[in-house]
Amino acid sequence: MRYLKNAWYVAAISREIKQGELLSRKLFDQKMIFYRTSAGRPVAMMDRCPHRFAPLSMGRVEGDEVVCHYHGLKFDCTGSCTHNPHGDGKIPNRAVVTTYPTVERFGLVWLWAGEPEAADPDTIPPYEAIDDGPETGVGYGYIKMECNYELIADNVMDLSHVDFIHGPLIYTGGNLAPQKPAFSDHGDSVVTGWNWVQQQPMGLFNDFLPQPDTPARHFVQVTWRAPCNMVVHVGATQEDGNGYDEALESRDHHMMTPETEYSTHYFMVSRRNYLVDNAEYNEGKINGMMQAFLEEDAPVVAAIQKEMGDLTIDEMRPAYLAGDPGPVLCRKKLARLIDREIDEGIMATA
Amino acid sequence: MRYLKNAWYVAAISREIKQGELLSRKLFDQKMIFYRTSAGRPVAMMDRCPHRFAPLSMGRVEGDEVVCHYHGLKFDCTGSCTHNPHGDGKIPNRAVVTTYPTVERFGLVWLWAGEPEAADPDTIPPYEAIDDGPETGVGYGYIKMECNYELIADNVMDLSHVDFIHGPLIYTGGNLAPQKPAFSDHGDSVVTGWNWVQQQPMGLFNDFLPQPDTPARHFVQVTWRAPCNMVVHVGATQEDGNGYDEALESRDHHMMTPETEYSTHYFMVSRRNYLVDNAEYNEGKINGMMQAFLEEDAPVVAAIQKEMGDLTIDEMRPAYLAGDPGPVLCRKKLARLIDREIDEGIMATA
Amino acid sequence: MRYLKNAWYVAAISREIKQGELLSRKLFDQKMIFYRTSAGRPVAMMDRCPHRFAPLSMGRVEGDEVVCHYHGLKFDCTGSCTHNPHGDGKIPNRAVVTTYPTVERFGLVWLWAGEPEAADPDTIPPYEAIDDGPETGVGYGYIKMECNYELIADNVMDLSHVDFIHGPLIYTGGNLAPQKPAFSDHGDSVVTGWNWVQQQPMGLFNDFLPQPDTPARHFVQVTWRAPCNMVVHVGATQEDGNGYDEALESRDHHMMTPETEYSTHYFMVSRRNYLVDNAEYNEGKINGMMQAFLEEDAPVVAAIQKEMGDLTIDEMRPAYLAGDPGPVLCRKKLARLIDREIDEGIMATA
Ligand code: FES
Ligand code: FES
Ligand code: FES
Repeated sequence: MRYLKNAWYVAAISREIKQGELLSRKLFDQKMIFYRTSAGRPVAMMDRCPHRFAPLSMGRVEGDEVVCHYHGLKFDCTGSCTHNPHGDGKIPNRAVVTTYPTVERFGLVWLWAGEPEAADPDTIPPYEAIDDGPETGVGYGYIKMECNYELIADNVMDLSHVDFIHGPLIYTGGNLAPQKPAFSDHGDSVVTGWNWVQQQPMGLFNDFLPQPDTPARHFVQVTWRAPCNMVVHVGATQEDGNGYDEALESRDHHMMTPETEYSTHYFMVSRRNYLVDNAEYNEGKINGMMQAFLEEDAPVVAAIQKEMGDLTIDEMRPAYLAGDPGPVLCRKKLARLIDREIDEGIMATA
Repeated sequence: MRYLKNAWYVAAISREIKQGELLSRKLFDQKMIFYRTSAGRPVAMMDRCPHRFAPLSMGRVEGDEVVCHYHGLKFDCTGSCTHNPHGDGKIPNRAVVTTYPTVERFGLVWLWAGEPEAADPDTIPPYEAIDDGPETGVGYGYIKMECNYELIADNVMDLSHVDFIHGPLIYTGGNLAPQKPAFSDHGDSVVTGWNWVQQQPMGLFNDFLPQPDTPARHFVQVTWRAPCNMVVHVGATQEDGNGYDEALESRDHHMMTPETEYSTHYFMVSRRNYLVDNAEYNEGKINGMMQAFLEEDAPVVAAIQKEMGDLTIDEMRPAYLAGDPGPVLCRKKLARLIDREIDEGIMATA
Repeated sequence: MRYLKNAWYVAAISREIKQGELLSRKLFDQKMIFYRTSAGRPVAMMDRCPHRFAPLSMGRVEGDEVVCHYHGLKFDCTGSCTHNPHGDGKIPNRAVVTTYPTVERFGLVWLWAGEPEAADPDTIPPYEAIDDGPETGVGYGYIKMECNYELIADNVMDLSHVDFIHGPLIYTGGNLAPQKPAFSDHGDSVVTGWNWVQQQPMGLFNDFLPQPDTPARHFVQVTWRAPCNMVVHVGATQEDGNGYDEALESRDHHMMTPETEYSTHYFMVSRRNYLVDNAEYNEGKINGMMQAFLEEDAPVVAAIQKEMGDLTIDEMRPAYLAGDPGPVLCRKKLARLIDREIDEGIMATA
């Protein structure tokens, strides 16, 4: 599959990776295991024993090491074999498991898919907003999508679809499609956005506005960053003028990581600035949003994936509409980055 | 897949296509939608929105138009986009959906798979017998078969198999196989047939004969027409002489339309000349026949399809028997027609 | 698929093949039927009618013959067509079904996969031990494994895995892995073995030893023979000295026959020298062992097969351990035998 190798991808939500337990997850067509050392560091390793290729996920964690189920080889968190219970116990040269650089940040475990020496934590997306506020004001979600990750970027970048396929929680009432969205190229990111007045405010915000069920000014701004990390900053206000000083806001971080060419791990982190101390509302909100993606977006993008088969979007020759310049530019930027890697002969560890 | 393009195929039974509802069905590897305009005309259209390729079958009918579920493009029954709710509302050139010529005749919706300008309703098979009599004397059936459509033509054209695999309803008691069937080539059709005396008359007819459970003369004549439409005219009589003036008869129209190379839409319309006013018997008879195909023929032809994989029948080098000249000639005729289309560069719209 | 053609493979346990009944089983990617003549001879035949390719397994046995379900052709146990109920009844030249030489020996039906004229019963493995003793001292088992047959040979040849993945019945308590197993090349067979003292004797033997739950000397010797037939001779004793005169012993014959490149028929025959007259124990023992393979080995080798996909073991570049010289030599010997057949242009009948 074609993907950007020298890049950070979200491999898991922090809470998914535990001490003493193995999480098995396929990324970029490669099965990997994840566990957490006693010092709390998340480890990512190919899910394959170098002896007879039993999946390490069938084995177990012992302290900071992984033990293969089949013949008991032990590996430390660098992938080196530390114990061979066979014969004279000498460690064969090939008894090494590929590991992947990881960094834990913003409650997420980021994995570097490319050359380990190029892994620079400073290039992890600047999602500090996630950490800005109490735990009860931020929600984490995960679903699996049966489509290529770029189809999800198309979906999030062109929010005009919200006018059509979504229910009351993120209701936009037909206000986005008629607009030509603002749209700007920032080199390593692309930003698109809409502003509008909604007679019946969006479900997310309505109850918390000064005057529910009466018109409010809304905005939404989507920021894409290669390979496929996006922030949807959305808000509503009833204050006078054009400002958003008193706006109710949600910053929804959408991070798409390829599982295969035709399936994607979809992570979401939603941080809001209202009712931030309510754990129950917090959980309901993230679950409601994930439910909306699962029930309303997922069937459409999966069906599109089936229609496309192994053709590219260009080979399909789409009829583009007013909301498409954003997603089209994102695809172009990513394609250029991947082409450059191919030219430079950059190889992933996998 | 290889199929005859400039030809009429049954796409659906008329009652399957309704106003205000979308029927989704794959023909020739292509997903299509079907609906009925307010004027009652059946519409056939590719099941793919030209914008982002959402299946139109996920959308809805509004009046005579189809609305895409994902971003709301509207298409009329010619496939032209009539409404773009995005930006300035200009209709992009590529916003067109391929449609297919249809004609409704004999309670069936016929679809032309080839060049639209060549679609001549006069070439629809002459199945007027279907309309000849009361509604309670004709039954319509549909099943899906997991095999190439030509395997069903082989099955119907060589009815000697009825001696072996079928139960009492269409019992022929071993009378067909020993015969060398009559068989004649009429250019665009092939006819084969058998005549015999059966001690215990065929289950279909027995109860309605003057003297049930006593010998009757039977006949069956099968007429094949490219690509894969067949009529099985079957009857029984106890009158003196060689005539069939008083015969109980059933004209069973078998129409096979490829879904994929390895699966087929199998339509049947059965018109009889006895007990024509009995709606209950009518339903029981067609259901009994479809049940027989589903339980007795379908498993065999599906197993044969599995055995054949992607080999042609010639590559499999069959040992032919007395009943095979009919099916062999039909395959040859169809192959020649398809070869001629390929030579002439005829392309389907799909 | 790549396999040794001129060789005997176990096709079935004798009791699986019955008079008047068809057993359908795929060997080497080819579906076959098996039945037993009135004289008791097991017949093996391609599961495909030469007329229209209906599986003969859909038909029935009549006396010593098979009748095709679809149009009633009859075949005798040599695959010759003996009856054609169609037309003048002449038998077409192509109406022949491929049969395979079989020999029934040791309660097993052996099939020769290669050139019929080369089928020499003297080359069936010398498993006389199976017949040596009462019926209640021998158990037969069969399971299907979702892996290439050579992965099972790897598993059985390197019994060090028993230290890790198996439960109490065949518990070896970590005594095998630390040893460099004895290992010898006998031309057409490879033998490997271990000797050890176990504090808590193996579950199979413990209750029958003079002093249960106290240390016993154990041995296990594995003999492989191409293509994939193996004997595991395992025993335990508490007598003085180094001998095994009073040892409790089990001779477990493991016979692997490819179904496809990625699935295997796994047969086991276990003959023991203790409690040989107990039918209930006999059944419990073989069932316990098959259960252990099914629950403890099968998931691992199936997972390894998935990891390997269509790569060979050499392409995967394994890190070999002390127990691997045995399995590696078996693979080499088999590869050489297959290469030689390819050089000699030997073709299977299939
Ligand atoms: S496969 Fe892991 S130790 Fe053998
Ligand atoms: S996919 Fe149909 S309108 Fe966008
Ligand atoms: S397929 Fe066997 S007799 Fe016709």
